[in-house]
Amino acid sequence: MRFDHVGVATEDAEGLAFLYEDLLGCSIAHEERFEGLKIIFLELENGYFELLEPTGEGTVARYLEENGDGVHHVAVETDDINRALETAEAVGVELIDSEPRQGAWGHQVAFLHPGSTGGVLIEFVEH
Amino acid sequence: MRFDHVGVATEDAEGLAFLYEDLLGCSIAHEERFEGLKIIFLELENGYFELLEPTGEGTVARYLEENGDGVHHVAVETDDINRALETAEAVGVELIDSEPRQGAWGHQVAFLHPGSTGGVLIEFVEH
Repeated sequence: MRFDHVGVATEDAEGLAFLYEDLLGCSIAHEERFEGLKIIFLELENGYFELLEPTGEGTVARYLEENGDGVHHVAVETDDINRALETAEAVGVELIDSEPRQGAWGHQVAFLHPGSTGGVLIEFVEH
Repeated sequence: MRFDHVGVATEDAEGLAFLYEDLLGCSIAHEERFEGLKIIFLELENGYFELLEPTGEGTVARYLEENGDGVHHVAVETDDINRALETAEAVGVELIDSEPRQGAWGHQVAFLHPGSTGGVLIEFVEH
């Protein structure tokens, strides 16, 4: 598996994108509105930052209220998301999504419960 | 620039390493004791998880007390860490380390203040 992206919860996706472009020399690869979020993907050489700005209620809005801006999740790319979920269940990891669902950028995604992965909200993603 | 690693604060680096090995098919690339930390680097195809377990007082121990287990920082690799720090200053980012210092695995590292990078503790690393 490989790192796909680091998801960052923010009150201002565009402002943070401008900063990271200057700071890290990355550029915007994709933007969309998805499930109450304004999302900007910034491309580094080997992966992305996914900037997540809530436009309404939802898990990211609640995350911001409780934690403030910062890393929300870490996405790991797999060639076979169903097999990755089977492995997760087999090793005792609690699944948030028991089946893959359509996520941002049209990818298949599934989240694992951070309570069983060392406090890290891990997302499996299959392009 | 490219993702180098995601740093994870944990009370049990070895236990989490075993879990991630099974869950993500990664393997231990490096282990060391460094500045009051037991550190395990787990290698994915394009980067690492750095598992950080405090063995005494320090910033990671304080982080765990305040936040519990989870993502502590995101490290971005650069070929020229001095230039990366100059760029960071030029765009108004507050530096934790104004000059590179020796970090884990013998690499040159410098941290940026999360208060000026959208709540993300970013580490520059030059191998």
